[in-house]
Amino acid sequence: MKAEMIAVGTEILLGDIVNTDAQVISLGLDELGIDLFYQTVVGDNPERLRAVLDIARQRSDLIITTGGLGPTLDDLTRETIAEAFGKQLVLHQPSLRRITAFFDRIGREMTPNNIKQAMLPADCTVLDNDWGTAPGCAFEADGVHVLMLPGPPRECTPLFRTAGMAYLAKLAGGTIVSHNIHIFGLGESEMEDRLHDLMEGARNPTLAPYAKDGECLVRVTAKADTREQAEQLTAPAVRQVCDALGDAVYGVDVGSLEQAAADALTARGLTLSVAESCTGGLLSKRITDIAGASRFYKGGACTYCNEIKMKILGVKKQTLDRYTAVSVQTAEEMARGIAQAYGTDIGIGITGYAGPDGGEDGTPAGTIHIGMYCAGETQVRTICSPRGRETARRDAANHALDLILRAAKKYPKS
Amino acid sequence: MKAEMIAVGTEILLGDIVNTDAQVISLGLDELGIDLFYQTVVGDNPERLRAVLDIARQRSDLIITTGGLGPTLDDLTRETIAEAFGKQLVLHQPSLRRITAFFDRIGREMTPNNIKQAMLPADCTVLDNDWGTAPGCAFEADGVHVLMLPGPPRECTPLFRTAGMAYLAKLAGGTIVSHNIHIFGLGESEMEDRLHDLMEGARNPTLAPYAKDGECLVRVTAKADTREQAEQLTAPAVRQVCDALGDAVYGVDVGSLEQAAADALTARGLTLSVAESCTGGLLSKRITDIAGASRFYKGGACTYCNEIKMKILGVKKQTLDRYTAVSVQTAEEMARGIAQAYGTDIGIGITGYAGPDGGEDGTPAGTIHIGMYCAGETQVRTICSPRGRETARRDAANHALDLILRAAKKYPKS
Repeated sequence: MKAEMIAVGTEILLGDIVNTDAQVISLGLDELGIDLFYQTVVGDNPERLRAVLDIARQRSDLIITTGGLGPTLDDLTRETIAEAFGKQLVLHQPSLRRITAFFDRIGREMTPNNIKQAMLPADCTVLDNDWGTAPGCAFEADGVHVLMLPGPPRECTPLFRTAGMAYLAKLAGGTIVSHNIHIFGLGESEMEDRLHDLMEGARNPTLAPYAKDGECLVRVTAKADTREQAEQLTAPAVRQVCDALGDAVYGVDVGSLEQAAADALTARGLTLSVAESCTGGLLSKRITDIAGASRFYKGGACTYCNEIKMKILGVKKQTLDRYTAVSVQTAEEMARGIAQAYGTDIGIGITGYAGPDGGEDGTPAGTIHIGMYCAGETQVRTICSPRGRETARRDAANHALDLILRAAKKYPKS
Repeated sequence: MKAEMIAVGTEILLGDIVNTDAQVISLGLDELGIDLFYQTVVGDNPERLRAVLDIARQRSDLIITTGGLGPTLDDLTRETIAEAFGKQLVLHQPSLRRITAFFDRIGREMTPNNIKQAMLPADCTVLDNDWGTAPGCAFEADGVHVLMLPGPPRECTPLFRTAGMAYLAKLAGGTIVSHNIHIFGLGESEMEDRLHDLMEGARNPTLAPYAKDGECLVRVTAKADTREQAEQLTAPAVRQVCDALGDAVYGVDVGSLEQAAADALTARGLTLSVAESCTGGLLSKRITDIAGASRFYKGGACTYCNEIKMKILGVKKQTLDRYTAVSVQTAEEMARGIAQAYGTDIGIGITGYAGPDGGEDGTPAGTIHIGMYCAGETQVRTICSPRGRETARRDAANHALDLILRAAKKYPKS
């Protein structure tokens, strides 16, 4: 099956946003064994979209569109595709009810232009959108399969990875199973080096390495007639990858460092608090991204000035004077201080220069100390992440979560 | 001038990398006032690239390609383009000398396959690549301008922004100006309803509405011979949009809610602290995303359990018992408590059910109270954001920033 993607959105052509949907869909098609030959971006312009569709239907068996399904005047994907493929748009009552219910829930009046989001091609397969208002849909016409997805990544990604890929798996025949092996503390090239031999021969299952957000991932994907057969194909490969990467693997299908840390703490009945200076709340935010974090997380303090470090965390004035706020000693006192103030088993203290500026003493931007207090002891990991404020803060939070996860795993499960 | 981009690279179609060159070039073309109508990605396959080129030359005056200029076998952009436009490839001696010198500098032997990077279309304009080995080049044939750039972003970006844009500025003539009007507290469809008449007739300047991250944006863009003329075209449209949307406009060209709030606080010498329950540090994280936040931000507390709300913020036990932790009363006490504990002019207190669960008393998930203490008074805004945990938390942080911004603006600038 030859596929192509068409992203509809003037905001991409203007450079306002990057077409990240394209990567999500490309990766998914690769997992499904569907060849993707073209990606096109076209603006919110019905004539040009129509021309692009006419080119696509000549050369591809599957057209996946993103964007242009919203309520506004310039959202014209549905109408243009329906016309191109001679499909009537009909009101899909269940979708209209979902949209109406959505507006009821948020207590806003639904303006009439929202109704058009429920106008879908006759006899299409509707993909319910649990992340926004515009449903996706799919149909076949003239031997070409068309799949329409909403554009916003927070809607497109989950809808594609669930209902979208399930629909395509049926077209492609059989089913697929993927497992994600999560790795922290190993660079992408070192990981690839270690996996080189395993990856080279791999066809089914395939092994795909990714680097993202300061950590790595290997996705093992197998295709088979049944789910059980696919699972049997992936199992030995997952074991081999874990063996090759050893200690750097922090989990399989665990979602994220914060999820893995949350699971490890919850399973052991341990409690956590965090004190943040340069990360400014990012670590606390990521911990509380996890629903149910209140089972182990008592809270945090963003201590963005020395005064508050002393008052809330009990960091000593002489420590700040002698070693400065960005020091191993301050990180230790922050970690111990928050654990004591909040009464938790584990305390984290983060202090550093996130950038753009470093310290007046010449300490470079990106130098960050991550202290951890646990069972009466403190330890500090110092990192240097000089690639900008956002990356430095992210890396510091990643290392803190890695410290928490490793500390928790030393305890027996309760 | 109608432009289109063609990225050549199987690694983009496989999802290994995101086509970030597209954004860099889109933004640059927008600055130059060159209309970009299409972006296409095609693999390292000469037949498909040739077909894409044949489509492009029919519909565009300018074709910009990225990728496929390297030394390896699958780098075929140069050869395919030369053939498509009937151009001879000739050895460009200065480029060969640059490539040879590059290998000398890094102390590696130049393998013979590198020579082909200096084979360029006859009579083209060569764009010297100071960031890698493959030069860019440009030519005109059959009334179509072609600009070829290397694919790696660390080469493509600087080469495009310097020699590439200089070449294009000469072709384009004229310039464009854009202004972004930032809106909070109005849904996209309601915004468009109010702007409908203004938008429908708009050609120069154009009015483009966007919804992103819980807020909206209208971009007003005008094209003219000079920057001054373009500014004169945008000015009345910006005023009309601001008038139509009234109080919901929080700034023009201000970047983001957090940046606008940071600027407003800094300009008035006001200080801020925040207490977060369900947002868990997200608001603090967003405030400290702004470099220089320490000028107004003293810090925050994530009080994820009642015990810490009482201990750090002084929330009264009877308030928690009588009204629960998720209540207007608790939000007020959190806001006042953090302002007093941290000694700041403004204090924020956020408490709610981010989801997936709501309250045991039937309060739905997404119900969040945002309290603000300022100048001896407290106020609370209650929102209902039922589209999932992440969106609920984002919306709560947005509303907090909106409250801060409105409060700050009531003070005279210092």
